[in-house]
Formats: sequence, C-alpha cells, structure tokens
Amino acid sequence: MIRVGIIGVGTVGASVANILQKNKAIISARAGKEIVVVKGAVSNLEKDRNVDIPLTDNIDEILEDDSIDIIVELMGGIDLPYEIVKKALSRGKAVVTANKALLAYHRFDLQAIAKDIPIGYEASVAGGIPIINALKVGLSANQIVAIKGIMNGTCNYMLTRMMNEGVSYEAVLHEAQKLGYAEADPTFDVGGFDAAHKLLILASIAYGIDAKPEDILIEGIEEINQDDIDFAKEFGYSIKLLAIAKKLDDKIELRVHPVLIKQERMIAKIDGVMNGVSVIGDCVGETLYYGPGAGGDATASAVISDIVEIVRAGQSSPMLGFKKPFESEKLSLLPKEEIESEYYLRMLVDDAPGVLASIAKVLGENGISIETFLQRPSDNERKATLLCATHRCREKAILNAISEIEALSHIDTKIAMIRIEE
Amino acid sequence: MIRVGIIGVGTVGASVANILQKNKAIISARAGKEIVVVKGAVSNLEKDRNVDIPLTDNIDEILEDDSIDIIVELMGGIDLPYEIVKKALSRGKAVVTANKALLAYHRFDLQAIAKDIPIGYEASVAGGIPIINALKVGLSANQIVAIKGIMNGTCNYMLTRMMNEGVSYEAVLHEAQKLGYAEADPTFDVGGFDAAHKLLILASIAYGIDAKPEDILIEGIEEINQDDIDFAKEFGYSIKLLAIAKKLDDKIELRVHPVLIKQERMIAKIDGVMNGVSVIGDCVGETLYYGPGAGGDATASAVISDIVEIVRAGQSSPMLGFKKPFESEKLSLLPKEEIESEYYLRMLVDDAPGVLASIAKVLGENGISIETFLQRPSDNERKATLLCATHRCREKAILNAISEIEALSHIDTKIAMIRIEE
Repeated sequence: MIRVGIIGVGTVGASVANILQKNKAIISARAGKEIVVVKGAVSNLEKDRNVDIPLTDNIDEILEDDSIDIIVELMGGIDLPYEIVKKALSRGKAVVTANKALLAYHRFDLQAIAKDIPIGYEASVAGGIPIINALKVGLSANQIVAIKGIMNGTCNYMLTRMMNEGVSYEAVLHEAQKLGYAEADPTFDVGGFDAAHKLLILASIAYGIDAKPEDILIEGIEEINQDDIDFAKEFGYSIKLLAIAKKLDDKIELRVHPVLIKQERMIAKIDGVMNGVSVIGDCVGETLYYGPGAGGDATASAVISDIVEIVRAGQSSPMLGFKKPFESEKLSLLPKEEIESEYYLRMLVDDAPGVLASIAKVLGENGISIETFLQRPSDNERKATLLCATHRCREKAILNAISEIEALSHIDTKIAMIRIEE
Repeated sequence: MIRVGIIGVGTVGASVANILQKNKAIISARAGKEIVVVKGAVSNLEKDRNVDIPLTDNIDEILEDDSIDIIVELMGGIDLPYEIVKKALSRGKAVVTANKALLAYHRFDLQAIAKDIPIGYEASVAGGIPIINALKVGLSANQIVAIKGIMNGTCNYMLTRMMNEGVSYEAVLHEAQKLGYAEADPTFDVGGFDAAHKLLILASIAYGIDAKPEDILIEGIEEINQDDIDFAKEFGYSIKLLAIAKKLDDKIELRVHPVLIKQERMIAKIDGVMNGVSVIGDCVGETLYYGPGAGGDATASAVISDIVEIVRAGQSSPMLGFKKPFESEKLSLLPKEEIESEYYLRMLVDDAPGVLASIAKVLGENGISIETFLQRPSDNERKATLLCATHRCREKAILNAISEIEALSHIDTKIAMIRIEE
C-alpha cells in the first residue's frame, strides 16, 4: 500500500482524494499497488472540503510522517511550496506538484536536490493533457523543432468569444469572471504570465534550457479589439495567445503573445476554454495534444497519473527528462530583438493627405516590406484606422519603425502590434 | 551501451537505424545510455537499404546473439513475427514492434509469455502519435468512457478529398495509390481492417478486453458516394472512418465504420493523411492526440521512444498496462445487434406515388423515428434518391428495417447505411 499526503486540499486536492477512492480498483490494477490518501493539510480547518480524509492544519504532520511515501503539493505560491518540497525530498519522499509558478522558478534547483527521488509535475502544464509525458517519453527520439501551445483557457475562451460572437474584450472579460474562468485580477491569465510559466517548463524538457519568466518575451491579449478581429476574419486568420518555443541552431526562442494564425492550422481550431499543444519533432513532424487545461477532476487526472507512474516505475525518468542538460549542446536564449516574424499593425490616423505615404516611408527605411494594407473608417469621421501586415522582418526593425511612426504627426494612438505566426 | 537488432529493415527499419545515428547525443542523454543498432535482418541482401548497419539474411544471427539486448520486429505478417518474438522473449530479450496485426491476434499470449520482459508497441497504433503511452500512463487515473480514432490515413485522405474537392471514390482511390498512400489491393485499408487492428490494441489497454478482429463490427468506406457527401455538407457533418470503443456498464462496444459526425467536433477537423485519437476519461473528459499515422521517420520516432523507455525504465509497465485483466470487472463485448446509434440511409427508388409512405411505414413498424428526410432527383429521371436520418435506435431494428425496405417493390438498389456519431 502506498500512502499519500496532500498539502493544499482545494478543488484539485479534493478531486485527487475522491478519484483515488472512486476509481480505486482500476487505479490499483494499473499501479500494481493500492494508493491511499492518509492525510490532507489545509490552512483553515473550518471550511468544508468535500473529502473523506483526515485533515490537519499542521503541514509538518504530513512532512514528518515517515509512513507517508508521496507528497502531493497543491498549495499555489512559490516560496512556501519550495520549502515544503525541499523538506519532503530531504526526507526521501516522492513529490507530485501541479504548481507551475514553483517550477517556472525552481525546476532546475529541484531536479538537483531530488537526484533520484521522483518529482511528478504532469498537472503543471495544460491540466489534464499528458503533454509532459509525451515530451519526456513519447517524443524522446526527436530533436524538438518547435512547441506552440494554447495553454491558458481563460484567454482562449475570451478570444474565441470575441472572434465567433463579436463580444468586446471588456464584456467577455466580465463574462469570464462571472463564469469563474478569470480571476478578479485577471492579469496573470490575460497578461500571458500563466502561459509563460508553462512554456518554461516544456522548454526545459525539450531543450534543457534554464530561463526565468523575466528572461522572455511575454505579452497579453488586453489590447486586442474589434478591428483586429475583423482583419483576422477578412484574411482567414484566428487570433490565439500562443506560447512558443523554437530552436534555431544554437539559439532557443521563447515567447508568449497573441498571434494571427491561419484558421486551417490544427492549433487554430482549438476553441473555448480548451488547451492544446503542438510539438514539432525532427523525426515525427507535428503532433498535437488537446484537452481540458483546468478544472478539478481534469487536473487531478494528471496528478494521479504521476502518482501511479511513481508507484509503478519508481525513478524511471529524471525530472526534466535528462540527468543534466545535454552538454553537447550549448544552447542560449535568442535575444528578444532578434526574433523574426511577420507583423500586423493597427493605428488610428488623421484622414489627411500624405499620412499613408509617411508611414510607408518609415517602414521602407526600416527594411520592412508591406504585404497587406487596409484602411477603414473609424468612429470619428476625421480619423481612419490603418491595418497593415508586413513580410518577415526582425523584431528590432518593427519596434524601431513603430516608435518612429508613433512620433509622426497625424498618428493618433499607440500602434497595436500582433505577430503573425506561419 | 545497449545493443539493438532490427528484424525487417524496410522504410521504418532504416529510419530507426538512421535516426538513432543522427540524434545519438540527445537520445543518449534521455536514455541515460548509448543505443547502437548492431545488426539488421532482411530477406533480400541484394536490395539497397540506405542504412549503415551490418545486414544478414539469417534472423537467428540476431535472435541467438546474446550480446543483443533489444529486438525490433518490423517484418509485417503474423505467424513468423509471432515465432520470432516468442523466441526473443524466451532468450530474455526485450522486444519493440510496430506490428499491429501480430498484436491484434496475439497481444494477450505475448503478455503472458513476456511476464516481466518489456514489449514496446507504441508504433503499432497511429504511427508517431504517442497514444499507447497516453493511455497506459497519462490517463491511468481514468475509467475510459470512450475512444474514437481516425487511425487509417489512407481512408482519411480519401474522405477528405471527396468531401473538400468533390473527387469520386474511384478517382481518389487511384490518386491515393499513385501517391503511395494506398496499396494495389486497398482492402486492408479501405475495408477498415487496419483501423480495427489498432482499435483492438487500444481497447485492451483501456479495458483489458480480449477480442479478435473477427469478433467486432468492421465496415469500410467503399460504398460512400457523392449523395452522402452532399447530405453531410448540407447538415453540417463530416464523413470519417472512425474506430470506436465505448464502455456501457459491463459491456464494451467495439466497431469500425464510416460515420457522419458534426464538423465542429475536434476529431472531425482532422483532415488528409493525418491520424487522431480522442479519448474520453471519466475524470479528465476529452483529450485528443493528433499527428502522422504513418511514414518511416514518424513510425521510427515511436519505435525509438519504446527503446529509450526500455533502456531508461526497464519493465516499468506491464505490456497492456496491467498484469492481468482487472478481475473486479467482468466485461464482455456488446453483441453487434445491440449497438445503438442514429442512422443515415440512402436509397434509389422509383419516383412513384406511395413509395415514400411505404418506406416510412416500415421504419415506423420497426420503432424507428425519422429525423430528416431528403428527396433529390437522380441521374435517371424516373428515379429519385432518398436520404434519411433517423433518431437513435438499435442496430437490430435498423438492419431489420433495411431488409424489409429492400424487399419492397419500387426500391432499386441495396440501401446504403452510415451511422451518425453524436
């Protein structure tokens, strides 16, 4: 019998305990042993947790109980979980965590501390989708060419509603908050930070590269408006918040931002709160993994799969898929300004002679050639909205052009920019 | 160092050898050991194999070489591979195979013989998509409610072309043969047998149920025509060859046949030669796995992932995900005639008074209610094509109604039937 302690018994923790109970027969058959949750730690013992396990508000009662084999950390936060996981490892206990923020900052430290003690974290990325396992095991023959993920259900829900129903950003955010898809302060989701944490975890498995959220390009969906949606529809694009990792020779590109992406691409077809991750390997080509990115039972499914795998296999696989980053490859992060993409720009300008010419001139001087230019009337009859898609260029060039255009007279607003993903 | 022998060095075998060479550094880092192909067996030594490994035409040179740790079986066929795999296991060698026919007939025997010797077969289902691993590991917390797979690229290519470009069945089959997607005798693919083999493998992992291809409902795509395509488009359906496994209490439903399925369903969006498998678990809900179902490098990616996993983990997981079928569940196959579905029927009838009424009467007498009825002119001006979709009913009822309708006067052809998948 394997004894499990859960630290943090919220929605996911309760689901873990309840599913282990409900599916006991089948899970035991697969794990080869019975798995029992012997205790859960919560901060407030008064609150009803809807579980049938003993609860404590003293975490050490779990960490210091030598009969407990596996610690499931579902608290959230970074510093306290880090201390808890270190303490669990120091006592030889395997750890399963769904905590993406913890791993975004401490995955390499934890791998070093854990050595041969298993740490499972399938639930930390894309909820119920077994993408960690796919990357660590299923695609192990491949050099990973690129990972492109829709890994934040809140953003995908909002963008889908904006795209399909024409709901405004403000209205759909309010709606998402009412439905419980978005927090009262939605910044962590809509700002791209949640997706960035997940991207960093996947990128360490694929490339062994250590980077922190601060090191990478992160932009959210807050600036997307109806003009952008209309442009996307007109030219056969969807708008998605993508988390992207790409390998270019010895450089790794990591970035999270909204993209325009052709509607016929498989990942562009993922709508609503669902998540999906496309992985391109040098042998296999593109594989894509789709499913629920959040929710108590879906996330618990991933947590339990880690527990089963630890029970069944013990330390079969180093935490990040390798004992140490492959020394044969000296990979480093591509500086943000060296990213190359096609770009879409939106600006509100005076409807006056010469404005278009002056903008086109700045783009040309920065070596940027235009693929599509669309002018449409704005609410203000003396203003026009300009929408423009460029050919491929460097991020540095487009940012430079944007600041030069913004400095021109007749330009009314900050220019909005969305990258176009091939 | 781990020594591998490949039996059957065709396209996939050559890819396995070449990728292990090309990606040696990264594969070694992930496996924790170097993996070397030391010999390949082929039937004809004269043929150029495009690989840089020693070849032999004597399989025993590999099977009886005690320095070889892992046998990769890529021959095709059933009886000879079965003998080879048994011999490899009897000598304690781990086995990796891509042979779905072998497993469709012998997976339970092989699991019994193998005991704790690993057998990997990720490549046997859906090529490069790590669906075996997802079912065995990623979804281990779940009771599997249903599996629905597009697992034959030939059929999906043909149906996509028929649907999107209006190409006829005969023309697209010819095209698929020219492109190498279909064999000269295409029966194994277009008749649904290939997909059935794969379904049986997945169903054993999900349910521990032993069944042979002969035991289950298998229908191909040969009868689908332009009327069906037009009906599908008119009512928002795609036509796909689906392999379906479903659990209903203590019964398991296994079937392969074309379906009409709503275009907005994720699996309906999988086009061309690509494969995809949707798995519905009781905790996680729907997850879907998409990628290339065939091709040398894609299939080799799966073969190598098994080799890496065997090197890394040894016998971490029983072949079918459990040591013996879970005894707590007494599952049996649902008899074919008890399947329930909605149905689409197509028939060519005389354009005469009373014909429609007589057909409607037969359906009514069999307890089948009609959802949609469409009459359209046929090439022959005295005939009409009737297209009809029913509400949910038993297979037995619809088959009975079909034979009764076919016995009516004024009915010109055998009735074509396609199941409608919710």
